[in-house]
Amino acid sequence: MPFENIGFAELDHHRALRKGFPEVILGEGKTPEQVAAIAEKLLAQGDTLLVTRVGKDCLEALKKVAPRAVYHVEARAISVDRNKVKKPGVSVVCAGTADLPVAEEAAVTAEVMGSHVEKAYDVGVAGIHRLFDKLDALRVANAIVVVAGMEGALPSVVAGLVSAPVIAVPTSAGYGASFGGLAPLLTMLNACSPGVAVVNIDNGFGAGYLAAVINRLAARPTDAQKGQQPRGGSR
Amino acid sequence: MPFENIGFAELDHHRALRKGFPEVILGEGKTPEQVAAIAEKLLAQGDTLLVTRVGKDCLEALKKVAPRAVYHVEARAISVDRNKVKKPGVSVVCAGTADLPVAEEAAVTAEVMGSHVEKAYDVGVAGIHRLFDKLDALRVANAIVVVAGMEGALPSVVAGLVSAPVIAVPTSAGYGASFGGLAPLLTMLNACSPGVAVVNIDNGFGAGYLAAVINRLAARPTDAQKGQQPRGGSR
Amino acid sequence: MPFENIGFAELDHHRALRKGFPEVILGEGKTPEQVAAIAEKLLAQGDTLLVTRVGKDCLEALKKVAPRAVYHVEARAISVDRNKVKKPGVSVVCAGTADLPVAEEAAVTAEVMGSHVEKAYDVGVAGIHRLFDKLDALRVANAIVVVAGMEGALPSVVAGLVSAPVIAVPTSAGYGASFGGLAPLLTMLNACSPGVAVVNIDNGFGAGYLAAVINRLAARPTDAQKGQQPRGGSR
Amino acid sequence: MPFENIGFAELDHHRALRKGFPEVILGEGKTPEQVAAIAEKLLAQGDTLLVTRVGKDCLEALKKVAPRAVYHVEARAISVDRNKVKKPGVSVVCAGTADLPVAEEAAVTAEVMGSHVEKAYDVGVAGIHRLFDKLDALRVANAIVVVAGMEGALPSVVAGLVSAPVIAVPTSAGYGASFGGLAPLLTMLNACSPGVAVVNIDNGFGAGYLAAVINRLAARPTDAQKGQQPRGGSR
Amino acid sequence: MPFENIGFAELDHHRALRKGFPEVILGEGKTPEQVAAIAEKLLAQGDTLLVTRVGKDCLEALKKVAPRAVYHVEARAISVDRNKVKKPGVSVVCAGTADLPVAEEAAVTAEVMGSHVEKAYDVGVAGIHRLFDKLDALRVANAIVVVAGMEGALPSVVAGLVSAPVIAVPTSAGYGASFGGLAPLLTMLNACSPGVAVVNIDNGFGAGYLAAVINRLAARPTDAQKGQQPRGGSR
Amino acid sequence: MPFENIGFAELDHHRALRKGFPEVILGEGKTPEQVAAIAEKLLAQGDTLLVTRVGKDCLEALKKVAPRAVYHVEARAISVDRNKVKKPGVSVVCAGTADLPVAEEAAVTAEVMGSHVEKAYDVGVAGIHRLFDKLDALRVANAIVVVAGMEGALPSVVAGLVSAPVIAVPTSAGYGASFGGLAPLLTMLNACSPGVAVVNIDNGFGAGYLAAVINRLAARPTDAQKGQQPRGGSR
Amino acid sequence: MPFENIGFAELDHHRALRKGFPEVILGEGKTPEQVAAIAEKLLAQGDTLLVTRVGKDCLEALKKVAPRAVYHVEARAISVDRNKVKKPGVSVVCAGTADLPVAEEAAVTAEVMGSHVEKAYDVGVAGIHRLFDKLDALRVANAIVVVAGMEGALPSVVAGLVSAPVIAVPTSAGYGASFGGLAPLLTMLNACSPGVAVVNIDNGFGAGYLAAVINRLAARPTDAQKGQQPRGGSR
Amino acid sequence: MPFENIGFAELDHHRALRKGFPEVILGEGKTPEQVAAIAEKLLAQGDTLLVTRVGKDCLEALKKVAPRAVYHVEARAISVDRNKVKKPGVSVVCAGTADLPVAEEAAVTAEVMGSHVEKAYDVGVAGIHRLFDKLDALRVANAIVVVAGMEGALPSVVAGLVSAPVIAVPTSAGYGASFGGLAPLLTMLNACSPGVAVVNIDNGFGAGYLAAVINRLAARPTDAQKGQQPRGGSR
Repeated sequence: MPFENIGFAELDHHRALRKGFPEVILGEGKTPEQVAAIAEKLLAQGDTLLVTRVGKDCLEALKKVAPRAVYHVEARAISVDRNKVKKPGVSVVCAGTADLPVAEEAAVTAEVMGSHVEKAYDVGVAGIHRLFDKLDALRVANAIVVVAGMEGALPSVVAGLVSAPVIAVPTSAGYGASFGGLAPLLTMLNACSPGVAVVNIDNGFGAGYLAAVINRLAARPTDAQKGQQPRGGSR
Repeated sequence: MPFENIGFAELDHHRALRKGFPEVILGEGKTPEQVAAIAEKLLAQGDTLLVTRVGKDCLEALKKVAPRAVYHVEARAISVDRNKVKKPGVSVVCAGTADLPVAEEAAVTAEVMGSHVEKAYDVGVAGIHRLFDKLDALRVANAIVVVAGMEGALPSVVAGLVSAPVIAVPTSAGYGASFGGLAPLLTMLNACSPGVAVVNIDNGFGAGYLAAVINRLAARPTDAQKGQQPRGGSR
Repeated sequence: MPFENIGFAELDHHRALRKGFPEVILGEGKTPEQVAAIAEKLLAQGDTLLVTRVGKDCLEALKKVAPRAVYHVEARAISVDRNKVKKPGVSVVCAGTADLPVAEEAAVTAEVMGSHVEKAYDVGVAGIHRLFDKLDALRVANAIVVVAGMEGALPSVVAGLVSAPVIAVPTSAGYGASFGGLAPLLTMLNACSPGVAVVNIDNGFGAGYLAAVINRLAARPTDAQKGQQPRGGSR
Repeated sequence: MPFENIGFAELDHHRALRKGFPEVILGEGKTPEQVAAIAEKLLAQGDTLLVTRVGKDCLEALKKVAPRAVYHVEARAISVDRNKVKKPGVSVVCAGTADLPVAEEAAVTAEVMGSHVEKAYDVGVAGIHRLFDKLDALRVANAIVVVAGMEGALPSVVAGLVSAPVIAVPTSAGYGASFGGLAPLLTMLNACSPGVAVVNIDNGFGAGYLAAVINRLAARPTDAQKGQQPRGGSR
Repeated sequence: MPFENIGFAELDHHRALRKGFPEVILGEGKTPEQVAAIAEKLLAQGDTLLVTRVGKDCLEALKKVAPRAVYHVEARAISVDRNKVKKPGVSVVCAGTADLPVAEEAAVTAEVMGSHVEKAYDVGVAGIHRLFDKLDALRVANAIVVVAGMEGALPSVVAGLVSAPVIAVPTSAGYGASFGGLAPLLTMLNACSPGVAVVNIDNGFGAGYLAAVINRLAARPTDAQKGQQPRGGSR
Repeated sequence: MPFENIGFAELDHHRALRKGFPEVILGEGKTPEQVAAIAEKLLAQGDTLLVTRVGKDCLEALKKVAPRAVYHVEARAISVDRNKVKKPGVSVVCAGTADLPVAEEAAVTAEVMGSHVEKAYDVGVAGIHRLFDKLDALRVANAIVVVAGMEGALPSVVAGLVSAPVIAVPTSAGYGASFGGLAPLLTMLNACSPGVAVVNIDNGFGAGYLAAVINRLAARPTDAQKGQQPRGGSR
Repeated sequence: MPFENIGFAELDHHRALRKGFPEVILGEGKTPEQVAAIAEKLLAQGDTLLVTRVGKDCLEALKKVAPRAVYHVEARAISVDRNKVKKPGVSVVCAGTADLPVAEEAAVTAEVMGSHVEKAYDVGVAGIHRLFDKLDALRVANAIVVVAGMEGALPSVVAGLVSAPVIAVPTSAGYGASFGGLAPLLTMLNACSPGVAVVNIDNGFGAGYLAAVINRLAARPTDAQKGQQPRGGSR
Repeated sequence: MPFENIGFAELDHHRALRKGFPEVILGEGKTPEQVAAIAEKLLAQGDTLLVTRVGKDCLEALKKVAPRAVYHVEARAISVDRNKVKKPGVSVVCAGTADLPVAEEAAVTAEVMGSHVEKAYDVGVAGIHRLFDKLDALRVANAIVVVAGMEGALPSVVAGLVSAPVIAVPTSAGYGASFGGLAPLLTMLNACSPGVAVVNIDNGFGAGYLAAVINRLAARPTDAQKGQQPRGGSR
């Protein structure tokens, strides 16, 4: 199984075969030069690139090896994505505006991995009628990422209303007894609605990745495609 | 300020004056004889009695000093209640059947303190339409106790829909990452809906007490009374 | 039920109907421009505005859409309040000078929501006679907010002396085994005096809101009004 | 949306429509009579039944309303399952013999929900060659449940080797610094391999449910069927 | 420095010289025979004996080697105490009846170590006037042990009123967010009144020991002795 | 009982009567002007002043009302101390150089309160012979403050060797699993040597205060005075 | 690499090659029949057997397949050990009598793995001179297991005095703020003496195993053998 | 036993005798001047010096007393090492690039203490084939340091494959539910593979020290020396 030593890292080129998607670069703690060096090697063997948790200053270094790299401000991510065909089927839902960066990280990740993403933001349980307005789109999704900080109740509520798998992402948005995201993490792990699984606090990448993996598996793209057309009144 | 030493306890007879309701006996850790001895002293100075967290075996000892004492099986409480006029205005809502004992402790407490209690049980967020069916009753309440274990999301959802104060009670119903009720406790403390305050895990008594205190203060008893009559369609 | 999408947020205009008070803006994590944009929309439909956890730099942006906006330095809040009639009945008590910002956030919130607030500051249990001096005012309140950091013992003591509901607010003031406010939070949740409910650490807003809601419900405004006149000796 | 009040519970008959599978009965904390009463109502409207966390003594009561009910000893579950066609595609992997009950709960749940389950038990990282022997089966799965107590490292390792979504279940098997399953829970939430999501400690049901939901969505049943035939050497 | 090996223990006979009091036997986890064997050795070299956390069944075994051993039911301790002269100066205060066993362990320990103990029990902050009634006795003490469970606020209040050192003992009496005594432990560590130090949860022995050590050091026995005589009205 | 309102604080002038020492100013979170205002009032009624957790910039403001104020760099404290007679009897022991600021805060506090302090610094258990060298001084102390971070083992060891009360102070010096001082805090609370009580993490003030209170009570000043002269060989 | 499926377990026969010692059976959670079945298979391929955390009732079932099996009461372990030659060099030190079962588990494990074990029990820091008496034996060891509950200070002290690696084992012996062994665990992880590593709470097996592995590596068996002969005075 | 007081520290010159290696300077919290002063004293009595957790700015001060001092950038350490003969036998393995500084601290420490270190970096379990490529080197080591953040699974996997003792170092690399390294710490303490012991979070020094101590003890240097020569194909 192939991998490549570039001094400070062992690149796992075999990952695309095993996992169906190449290695993703966690930008945090790496210099722009290190990111660019890894990116160059990965792009030599694949079509797409994703760097997460990275400042905009990294874009310049990356442009030298990947001129078409794009910086996503909210998501704090950089992507190169040469494949423009996206399969519908992933929804990203988020409770409050403070959870937006994590939701965007999830959305960018799923997009880069080949899914078209529907978004429903700022629909937390304090005004639950805002969520009900989005239900039609949620009910045709193959995988739903639900991002929430503070009390983190939204994934339970969503999972009670849909049949698709819900990937819950607790965020560190909050204060006091949120304890850095521990509160919504525990909430989501104890969800009384079946069909919920949880990723790490603020891990938008992990949730978007998993949603895209599930969507890739799914047999019903047409449902979601229809979901983008006007819907009838029978619901 | 009067109090009475009966050997193993200092009875605080002045409490009815300060607090508007006499001392309540926490049954846990007391013998039936101790409970009966305290009860006798308290009933000599007041009309009502409440013993919480007590087994049915305590009833017999208590009957000797309070023949009309009643045992509430679900609530694990004993009450003597000579005042039958109850002011409407308190609702007790509960998420799952496992939370029922705590909800009943809240209901019995509020009843003994002079409030009529409306109940909405087993209406957790996994099937949130069950809650919406009860909204009319909740919207006329002066104080709402919401009891939930597991992820404890219900108080946030309820508080997003009503104007009355919500007293949230986390319960130890759950397992694993519930950590004995820590999960719903944190959820409720981080509620994104304003108008929620929280009491200790499994503290149905504290919540029912506070709801009754608020209801006693409230100026709109007639709303709630009307709430018990057929309602029109404008809501 | 109406709500309005302004790009980065879904404004819940229906909230004033459901909750009796319009949405409050949590300033933390929003730019002055975002705060001003939301404020403009909310003020188009209501008389009052409250922005919490906000620096003074936000005031300038807000002045453009709300010229009469006021910045409260201690509370770190901005308010617009066109309704000057306030119902007496809310007291805010605070243990130490370090708890003052949270107490002021509670007071400003309750004021904006239509309550007149009596304050008793720096009356912690290390010198409990200072509290006893304020008891007359506390005993005529309809709702009492008690703010304390460090060991957080004050709400228990207050609740043992009055009949009104006590909304306890733990603060992160302290060090070491305070663990960011965990210590007073647990203290307050375990209060042995009945009639105490707790909100999140440093959540002055939530406590002030709940106190105002309870005061709005209450039938005894005149007691508190009398409370502002000279009181006789019978107490 | 239909639901039915049977005194101590509000049955959510609409759930099968919303979620694609009827309500599951959590046996813990319910009497055999309560379980049987709920089961009778649910079976009147559906073909299958699942009761989890239930002792064998409950079977007798259930036999009266569901003569073909089966008790699964390891899983501590009861099922009625009239639909014998199962779609291949779910694998359940478990680290040690102490994790077996949770793994079996996952397997029974997925089976009742229509998935055929391949099992790979006792393949923990202390002897990782045992896992490699099972890789062919894992690589054709649509969803993989990985159950582990103690240090909970297995899901990371599995997810590094396959492309299917991994549902990780921490168990309370362990002692000391396992802290009731907290250790493997944190391990799994911090998994460095993408494609892992986590459910509550000991929540075999939740993991099996989610795996079956994903498998139901999946387009590649034939892969897994082929997986049961001899495979060539190209892997 | 002398010590003696008796097979399962190394007896530290030198301790009486170093510490001014011989080794105390922690009964928990030892058989009656082991306790008796150690007791016999210790009594061979000293006048007093204390066994803590021990059932009454141990008394019989101990009577064989120490016929005058006494069992203290509430304190769950056994003592042999040949020295009847006690120096006044230690007070033991306790908040609720559930804290009584820990308070009694403290009192028995201090008595065996040569101090006369004044007791003020069931004087928790829910009815703080009960404490004020005991203040005269507390103000002449050289060391005060304050025992409290639940929110554990009493030591702060006491220390705000007296000049003697306060040894605070949190107890595990409580439920829910008491977390086995963690709540009062944190409360006491964060006490805002100076002059408070804390021992382990339920460690009545440690507190009584320390109070007796301080009292032994103290120069003002006469104050406390006068404290046992009728006091005038000027306080 | 007298107290004085100066706008932002209620000064407790009665404290010197109740506690034997005037109020101490916690500098943290107060402006130099606030500190100076409080200091002026306190000095008007007493001879000494102590301000803790304060930067040197505060000294200038304080000099205007208290020209003889002294800044203690290591302790981060300011004192005014007109009474130069100090009673011997307090020792302050500290484990490592990182614990020095906390040890110095304890020493300055005890000095201001009238005790002469012997110091034994950098004598942690990694080289325990350094402690044994100081034992003579420790054995004549009336009260010993032991300050330690990291594993916090020193108080147990010291308390096993002396008869005086040991006031243990955990510090936040350390990293990783120290968790901000939680590790040494728990260590000290679980000390197997009797005679140890614990104050909050980094609370040098509280420990020095308590040591001085105990020393003030003590009858054996002469021992400690002798302790400053050459000692014979009999130990 | 060989392994054997016996239905409920995958036996890792290759482990003896990889690790130098065959698989050890964790008795907890296995029936006597399961233990015996695994034992029979393991003994068919090796000379020794170790079963930990097992009751004496398991011995009978084991005797059928391993007639020379021995039950170790304190250690709660069963061993078969056909190789009687033991290499000196392992010491097991334990703080209190309550830690004895864990210490014995370590000792039995190291013995079965071929090391001769020197024991120093009940030498906790409350009477540290008892430890100094054992120093000669400790200084010739190749690996030292130090077992302690409560505050867990002993490993730091030992590691400050010797050059051999110290394997620290926290135990759950203690109460209150021990939190099931968390206190000594944190103590040991923060040890200020270099040369300490820690295993799980109560994990005597893990410590004994590691000590034996280190001793097996060591070049100085003769030192330890000499250690059993009279030593000169130069130490 | 010799030690030297230099004002702010008690230097433990005897440590080299007791422990076989002189005191190491923890740079954190010391000024460059303090570090240089201590270093000068230590170098006066020994050949080597190690300063950990130190910035490069300290090097200049140190050069004055130790001109040949070297700064290790990744490890944030300074060393003086006059003894160039190194015994092979220590391996340092690390999971991700973010763990590199801790791994380097371990490597530098072991080198200064006389061991030659083989390194295997960036071989985490997400691509476990990278680890297998390094197995030959690991199997001839006498002691292996394994450094990992996030889920910390690597030590278990390594210990399942080798016979040498594994010293596991959790790092604070990670986010969210890593809780500053708590997650990998618990993972490693619960390792199911025998032969693992754990040091504090980020404590590369402690692990490198222990590995060098074990390697110094070991009898098989030649294996590892052979490991530095070209290896044949038979492995």
